[in-house]
Amino acid sequence: MELLEQAILEKGKVLAGDVLKVGSIINNQIDVKLLAALAEDICAHFKGRGITKVLTVEASGIAVAVLVAERLGVNAVFAKKSKTSNVDGEVYCAGCYSYTHQKKNTLIVPKEYIENTDKILIADDFLANGEAVTALSEIIRQAGAEAVGAAIAIEKGFQGGGDRLRAAGLDVYSCAIIDSMSEGKIVFRKL
Amino acid sequence: MELLEQAILEKGKVLAGDVLKVGSIINNQIDVKLLAALAEDICAHFKGRGITKVLTVEASGIAVAVLVAERLGVNAVFAKKSKTSNVDGEVYCAGCYSYTHQKKNTLIVPKEYIENTDKILIADDFLANGEAVTALSEIIRQAGAEAVGAAIAIEKGFQGGGDRLRAAGLDVYSCAIIDSMSEGKIVFRKL
Repeated sequence: MELLEQAILEKGKVLAGDVLKVGSIINNQIDVKLLAALAEDICAHFKGRGITKVLTVEASGIAVAVLVAERLGVNAVFAKKSKTSNVDGEVYCAGCYSYTHQKKNTLIVPKEYIENTDKILIADDFLANGEAVTALSEIIRQAGAEAVGAAIAIEKGFQGGGDRLRAAGLDVYSCAIIDSMSEGKIVFRKL
Repeated sequence: MELLEQAILEKGKVLAGDVLKVGSIINNQIDVKLLAALAEDICAHFKGRGITKVLTVEASGIAVAVLVAERLGVNAVFAKKSKTSNVDGEVYCAGCYSYTHQKKNTLIVPKEYIENTDKILIADDFLANGEAVTALSEIIRQAGAEAVGAAIAIEKGFQGGGDRLRAAGLDVYSCAIIDSMSEGKIVFRKL
């Protein structure tokens, strides 16, 4: 998606440790007009697939998930990284290592928010090693629901997670795929 | 807002320690149609006030903030509760005690995302003791920007934070105010 690629080139910043800082458009500050355009792009790809719910992880995935869910006319659900006092009852959970935060999280979704008849679109702002999407897919599997695919704003193609998930049969649609950002130069995959 | 009050009565659950569980509409699962209606209601209240940005806190405030910001045609910014590897540069911060999670957080917003010319609407899903809104107001003050008001989905009126903020001069607009929920019975303030 050209609009997103331009925004990444103009406003993104490559930090140490393969971290792409896009805080002014997607994470910390949310460029809502850009994300709305991205949600339209995602909905065009997954049109007619009978999606009943959008599933993401707190925190920065929520903006993408809500804007996509709004256009699809369905609810969004976000997995939490810890069980808080406003969660009661049984939960699904799956482990997930965050390379950005360098720690192991357990993603938690109360069982009551996923039905076994749900057709679920996973959504997130970033996909790198694919840990979060894999954990969310595992939660969908536990619930006996169907994972229709994964919608991602920015995929770090060079970290391989997206291609591994595609090879395993998941329809992973990313609005921009970065194939290299060595020496601070961002190179996009031709889509 | 009647639609929200009905949803709270139908789907909310009063848990121990004055916790209101509304996980199926606002937190964990997001009822996007309901939140979109709530965003319209908020925008009607703050119409013509020249808002340039919506400020919230991760995680569950993001859905409200993004849907309001989308309608106002401005960006949303969310404060983080910890400094992550994708935040560089100088930050504003303010302390804030979370009664739900029973811990002290420091809310962090990179300086680059607030200008001193910004007219900012604070948005959040809940207001109880007013700790988060107070901390966000403090960050806006540090930046030399203007706090236009605070837009809240559900205010726990009986905890007093909203009325203290109103007495201090902030325009706090809540879509539903709960004045009592003792013995599990939810009583709304007439608005």
